[in-house]
Amino acid sequence: MKTNIIYQPIGIIRTPFKEITGMPIQSCAATGTEGKIELEPEFAAGLFDLEGFSHIILLYHFHLVKGYKLYVVPFMDDKPHGIYATRAPTRPNPIGLSIVELKRIEGSVIYIDGVDMVDGTPLLDIKPFFGKIDNRENVTRGWLDTVSEQNVTKIKSDGRFYSNKSPKLNRCE
Amino acid sequence: MKTNIIYQPIGIIRTPFKEITGMPIQSCAATGTEGKIELEPEFAAGLFDLEGFSHIILLYHFHLVKGYKLYVVPFMDDKPHGIYATRAPTRPNPIGLSIVELKRIEGSVIYIDGVDMVDGTPLLDIKPFFGKIDNRENVTRGWLDTVSEQNVTKIKSDGRFYSNKSPKLNRCE
Repeated sequence: MKTNIIYQPIGIIRTPFKEITGMPIQSCAATGTEGKIELEPEFAAGLFDLEGFSHIILLYHFHLVKGYKLYVVPFMDDKPHGIYATRAPTRPNPIGLSIVELKRIEGSVIYIDGVDMVDGTPLLDIKPFFGKIDNRENVTRGWLDTVSEQNVTKIKSDGRFYSNKSPKLNRCE
Repeated sequence: MKTNIIYQPIGIIRTPFKEITGMPIQSCAATGTEGKIELEPEFAAGLFDLEGFSHIILLYHFHLVKGYKLYVVPFMDDKPHGIYATRAPTRPNPIGLSIVELKRIEGSVIYIDGVDMVDGTPLLDIKPFFGKIDNRENVTRGWLDTVSEQNVTKIKSDGRFYSNKSPKLNRCE
């Protein structure tokens, strides 16, 4: 029998994107696109001292994804790759990661820039971005070497990872 | 009533650290410390094309943490900060994030360098590290500006976030 790990959303991410199609595919391609986090007020005390950081890491639940795929054709390429060699949402545990710019905090509302997720996305965690820990130089980037880096800003999301007809929550009660 | 989001471990992270005390506090401070991921064989196909990446992002469950704290005194400082302004494990959803070096893959076993988690940690997700998406320049880093950046490599973990007497799974069935 498998172990269940149970989390609960700590808040909701509000963005201008009411649907998947046409969204930026990464936060680095969403500069200038503002959104906000409506944190559950019970967690607001945990934001103390966060405002000094210019960037924060958001971990969130891809709540519109149905099931998972081990091979996907990602937005950045026209060939299939293993799901763990991509950032596609159809993952066995559909957790999204975006690094966004922190603009300001008002009570339990966090104003951010660089949102690349659909409106209403359940938030799991916020971590401060710290260059010493989070930046890496001299990296190799596998199949991404064969595609233009500019694609990340040029290409927009489409519905390939989602059921357009009947979006349902994935393993979400 | 709150929404439950249910994940299941996709594998286990094996490291030399049998206990919390004395561990490196971040993966960037653990260069040369090797470990491996024992992925559940059913997910091994998802690793296709991952080997070309030099670095991968691991998301995992801090399974030894009991409950959460909204204020913590992190390893890097002697003053309390909000949990979301730190990387401490006692988070409302105790998800850990480490960027490690990918050495090689043999079947469903992934050999890695730079491990900063305890042996037996349940793995939730693997993402390829891609500098264009994941690096950020010109960042400000809040309270971390007041402490020496060298602390991240000098300081080792202690038991402050854990019960030494009776470690239990946190919201884990």
